[in-house]
Amino acid sequence: MRECPLDSAHTTGISSGDAVALTEAVETQFFSFGEQPNELILESGEKLGPVTVAYETYGRLNAQKSNAILICHALSGDAHAAGYSADAQKPGWWDNSIGPGKAFDTDRYFVICSNVIGGCKGSTGPASLDPEAGKPYGLSFPVITIRDMVEAQRHLIDFLGIDQLLCVAGGSMGGMQTLQWAASYPERVRSAIPIATTARHSPLQIAFNEVIRQSIMADPAWKDGNYYEDEPPDRGLSIARMIGHITFMSEESMEEKFSRHRTKILKGVPFAPEFAVGGYLHYQGSQFVKRFDANAYLYITRALDYFDLSGDRLLSNEKVRDIRFLILSFSSDWLYPPSQSQDIVRQLKKGQAEVTYCELNSTYGHDAFLVETQGQTQLIRNFLSSNDEHS
Amino acid sequence: MRECPLDSAHTTGISSGDAVALTEAVETQFFSFGEQPNELILESGEKLGPVTVAYETYGRLNAQKSNAILICHALSGDAHAAGYSADAQKPGWWDNSIGPGKAFDTDRYFVICSNVIGGCKGSTGPASLDPEAGKPYGLSFPVITIRDMVEAQRHLIDFLGIDQLLCVAGGSMGGMQTLQWAASYPERVRSAIPIATTARHSPLQIAFNEVIRQSIMADPAWKDGNYYEDEPPDRGLSIARMIGHITFMSEESMEEKFSRHRTKILKGVPFAPEFAVGGYLHYQGSQFVKRFDANAYLYITRALDYFDLSGDRLLSNEKVRDIRFLILSFSSDWLYPPSQSQDIVRQLKKGQAEVTYCELNSTYGHDAFLVETQGQTQLIRNFLSSNDEHS
Repeated sequence: MRECPLDSAHTTGISSGDAVALTEAVETQFFSFGEQPNELILESGEKLGPVTVAYETYGRLNAQKSNAILICHALSGDAHAAGYSADAQKPGWWDNSIGPGKAFDTDRYFVICSNVIGGCKGSTGPASLDPEAGKPYGLSFPVITIRDMVEAQRHLIDFLGIDQLLCVAGGSMGGMQTLQWAASYPERVRSAIPIATTARHSPLQIAFNEVIRQSIMADPAWKDGNYYEDEPPDRGLSIARMIGHITFMSEESMEEKFSRHRTKILKGVPFAPEFAVGGYLHYQGSQFVKRFDANAYLYITRALDYFDLSGDRLLSNEKVRDIRFLILSFSSDWLYPPSQSQDIVRQLKKGQAEVTYCELNSTYGHDAFLVETQGQTQLIRNFLSSNDEHS
Repeated sequence: MRECPLDSAHTTGISSGDAVALTEAVETQFFSFGEQPNELILESGEKLGPVTVAYETYGRLNAQKSNAILICHALSGDAHAAGYSADAQKPGWWDNSIGPGKAFDTDRYFVICSNVIGGCKGSTGPASLDPEAGKPYGLSFPVITIRDMVEAQRHLIDFLGIDQLLCVAGGSMGGMQTLQWAASYPERVRSAIPIATTARHSPLQIAFNEVIRQSIMADPAWKDGNYYEDEPPDRGLSIARMIGHITFMSEESMEEKFSRHRTKILKGVPFAPEFAVGGYLHYQGSQFVKRFDANAYLYITRALDYFDLSGDRLLSNEKVRDIRFLILSFSSDWLYPPSQSQDIVRQLKKGQAEVTYCELNSTYGHDAFLVETQGQTQLIRNFLSSNDEHS
């Protein structure tokens, strides 16, 4: 294992001053498959079809189709990872890491990001129309796992005509998909960057997801998932997201950002939040319900809980050892703590894979992979550049 | 600061083999005051009365009334700290620490434990009858703080004719009351043992309480606190308690106890818990609603959030330096982590108080102060015995 090559020589010629925004407006595209039976058989054995996968691409695929990088998003992410769409005020969720001169340099690489199935951001999920029933699936949508998400991505990569991805990368649930790619299709992955993630959801992580799901389902507006023609369970989903947000931050970042500062109290609202941290959580909850489907939150958190590539599972196909890994964790991340990344490293080393591991110092907790990009950027650039040396 | 006198010589003559159960059935008693105006003016300026305080005592008060120890309970505790009441199947919540030969040795000390006001276990709280309205207070119950809880206890101690407590002790919220006693009535406290606690509720702790309160209030059965004649908001309170329970454990203890073991799935219940850890949380939630009032949970968690004796507040009365302190924390407690106990130690040292601090190794997380009693017992015994040497 090589550790923290932050000061290695691979940065030559790349300075952070080169990073600029994507200039062209980006657009989400849609790829559909599964009209034929057996095109997508899920891990549960059930079939799903037709399946739509929403995706975006940045940069250009080279003639050899050897410069493609697949970015996998986290729980509430989507296909819009970078740049601005024509109507959007905000850039994509990882715009600080994807673009010309950035960690995933679109001047060199063809970057793909697709929305997971089971979600609600363009790919098929519980809010999608069930063609047989003529109404949204709701809870008749089948159980989805991380492997199923990867299987849908594999169909997209086939469609794009790419035999081998130069890299698969992602943080949190995106890291799990990255590991799943390595386990399911090692011959199609040249290198992998799982960030702030785990090879198995721990009981603590399952516990948080359990109360998150209970918060949604306790909302009478949830109605066993049949709310698509009425008011959605916003209150329950908002509380669920508030719980999630606590786990995304760290004690230090909360102290820095909020300390015990007070917030403006809503008069006449019993037990309204009085501290800034409570006000922040409420704001996050209220924004989240505008952009996310409650059933999708249930389906995706369950997929997280099912995830377990511990023991020999990650290495069941011996070709995993041909993949180069860069594993990153953040010191203050207590949701997917460094110890879990170290477990992945140990597994991979046992399987004789080439692994570089780095725990980055950050006070941002789990959110660090989205916001604390400086050290991460340098490590990813170095790692991707060194793929050239290995070719 | 003296650290960890676990091996000191104070244990002479006390072996753990001496520990036996309290032989007589214990009985909760009730003390009332506040019929006269101004007898209990709360920190908010509001008045509360009449006030009932439920309490139990163990052991005998000596003729000099110099052997009294006040035990302060945590969030969901009560006056029944030790022994068996006539009808009870389970002993008091700290029976492993209070009794003949135990940490708080009832052969030597007169131990008192009273239920906090604002709660629901015999002392006046939001479920009590508002004499003016002729119905339960509900949300017309005034705001309660940790200082108010201590003020009610002070009335009880006056009533019992005790000028100075040999010791005030408690874990978690009990530790906050202990610190508040030291700050409010230093001349009435000879020694103090705050365990697994903090001098100020941090934004992370406030954040958890915020989602806990939201879970209760989101239950339609809560009805702005006016549910006493109908079905109580059990579902919301249950989820609130599930959230709380996550914070009481540690990653290690969850791994040891549950790992990724499955639980029996409730058929026909959508997204029923599938993992043992989820089943455990549901069980804890379902038990809790049988014994606790939802409004009391709101009032007490707010009192926790308001608590702030940081900076000079703990030392505003210089007599605090005459109190001997034993501060205990537990290595795996991430709800009230050792760093917060160390902050208390620093504050007290700055004020030139006599402080002994020990961080005990435990995998039990915050629950350790209730269950991991071996090391704690020895430290408390030594500390209490050495009071004799200081007399």
